[in-house]
Amino acid sequence: MSNMTPLSELGEFGLIKLIKDKVTIQQGSTIKGIGDDAAVLEPTERQVVVSSDMLLEGVHFDLMFCPLKHLGYKAVAVNVSDIAAMNARPTQITVNIALGAKFTVEAVEELYEGIRLACENYKVDLVGGDTTSSRTGLVISVTAIGEVAKGEAVLRSGAKENDLICVTGDLGAAYLGLQILEREKQAFLANPDMQPELEERQYIIGRQLRPEARMDVVYDLKERGIKPTAMIDVSDGLASELFHICAQSGVGATIYKDNLPVDEQALEAAMEFKLDPITCILNGGEDYELLFTVPLADYDKVKNHPDISIIGKITAKGDGINLANKHGQSFPLQAQGWKHF
Amino acid sequence: MSNMTPLSELGEFGLIKLIKDKVTIQQGSTIKGIGDDAAVLEPTERQVVVSSDMLLEGVHFDLMFCPLKHLGYKAVAVNVSDIAAMNARPTQITVNIALGAKFTVEAVEELYEGIRLACENYKVDLVGGDTTSSRTGLVISVTAIGEVAKGEAVLRSGAKENDLICVTGDLGAAYLGLQILEREKQAFLANPDMQPELEERQYIIGRQLRPEARMDVVYDLKERGIKPTAMIDVSDGLASELFHICAQSGVGATIYKDNLPVDEQALEAAMEFKLDPITCILNGGEDYELLFTVPLADYDKVKNHPDISIIGKITAKGDGINLANKHGQSFPLQAQGWKHF
Repeated sequence: MSNMTPLSELGEFGLIKLIKDKVTIQQGSTIKGIGDDAAVLEPTERQVVVSSDMLLEGVHFDLMFCPLKHLGYKAVAVNVSDIAAMNARPTQITVNIALGAKFTVEAVEELYEGIRLACENYKVDLVGGDTTSSRTGLVISVTAIGEVAKGEAVLRSGAKENDLICVTGDLGAAYLGLQILEREKQAFLANPDMQPELEERQYIIGRQLRPEARMDVVYDLKERGIKPTAMIDVSDGLASELFHICAQSGVGATIYKDNLPVDEQALEAAMEFKLDPITCILNGGEDYELLFTVPLADYDKVKNHPDISIIGKITAKGDGINLANKHGQSFPLQAQGWKHF
Repeated sequence: MSNMTPLSELGEFGLIKLIKDKVTIQQGSTIKGIGDDAAVLEPTERQVVVSSDMLLEGVHFDLMFCPLKHLGYKAVAVNVSDIAAMNARPTQITVNIALGAKFTVEAVEELYEGIRLACENYKVDLVGGDTTSSRTGLVISVTAIGEVAKGEAVLRSGAKENDLICVTGDLGAAYLGLQILEREKQAFLANPDMQPELEERQYIIGRQLRPEARMDVVYDLKERGIKPTAMIDVSDGLASELFHICAQSGVGATIYKDNLPVDEQALEAAMEFKLDPITCILNGGEDYELLFTVPLADYDKVKNHPDISIIGKITAKGDGINLANKHGQSFPLQAQGWKHF
């Protein structure tokens, strides 16, 4: 750390300038970005969507194995994921950060490089926020803003009986990636000369450290003329998210165990950790895939989509929420999710 | 604390329900509030303004003397103040909170009661946010959203030579209130039987603990047909804010020492603490008054306003930023502001 620059050398205004210099405005709707009391936006669509999430060191991430660039990227991606889940298009973000005394200018640059990359990928403008000191760890609070034409927003409450339940990508990998990172951290703490074995598990580790918001699927569904009836992003685990959709839509659901999408690396890791892969798929969080329902009539449009799995169907409320196996047996599903408190 | 309920008894979903039950929607533009991946808004004006601020325990507030209800109120007010400084109307907020393990359900209710009160006063809807655990202290991150007709937003960059410099209310009181609270805290720590002497200083202590955003002045200026040329809220101290306006407008300024508004209690406290009152007025932060400039032609409209002081005038950039006394002597002003790092 001898060549690093303490934040105190830069000061708050220097820090704001450093951040501002990284920003390129991509959205025509950004009238005034960083540099005033508030940003000024001029949405091109009739409706605006807003979502906000906070990540705390020691609770949501561990700087021992989470590179700052990835962390910056992830902080944006998880918020964009919420905008995606509304069937909206992300346009702007604000970022509040609290930095501990140990933070260097170089570390802040890494963090904002990740934020910048995510802004570039998702075409969102960083338009404001707050930088402050923290007596303890790093805190990042992001608010994402998006736009959607009136009538196009998709809520959690629109699922109807007989709708197909779909999910993008694969599930459980982010949770298993975290198990590997935690294990390698413990091994490193026990023996600092040890090299972590991460290469064979790059995919699932990447799912944990640098998730993507599925904006590609949102745009793709629109192109194919599919409007989901309900949608949510998988941050707390599939089962928990399905419970939200069912509760808010007033319906039940059956999920087919054999249709649940899982990556080979995740399966291998589950075996290695002696974890039930189905539990990892159902309750492992942070995959940031989209769980959505479409009318049965859209079956032909989604059935061969390389990135969408049809995993079940919406049933009557009285039927409850069940997991069915290939023998036709059904078991009530438990929503586990994350316990924060 | 024996009758208090630990947060773990409520769980995350119980906590979200507790918060949601406190919310009354007042804005027609709130289409969907708490309960989905994002809030859905339908602004009635052409432009949307967004501002975000984060408050951390031990950095921005001390729970030893800051009641949670006031803190909740303040977290909203300081963000609404930024919307006021844009000449906009606040409409919605999102609130992210991180709670330490010591937090009880009753404490969260106090905090949200303050947030609710502020929402009611400023007519903003709480439409979303995030609740999470903190390994250390309380963190509150608020994003405020507002609306403004196209062409009505007031930036920091519009001040012109010969404009009048105005400020609302009085200055320095919040800083001096903090000095009193800190002194009484030390006295209490030294002797817990001691009763704090706060009654004679209620006004300035209130300025620190429960500031108000000057939305009243924003609405009042509009009614009087006054549109400021530049505006900023006084969060870091008058001098620092004036430097922002001058830098972004490319102008200089002269402030008249004798015109600076100060409350009697603040003056008394400054004397008690042997602090220069002018320094407290110029550099004490957190007053959340509005500093703005108006064309000289508006002089008659503002001169007798009970809540507005004309404190100076905008000059040419080359003249610099100065403080003038009644003898006509001028001294360059120093912007001190807050050092976070």
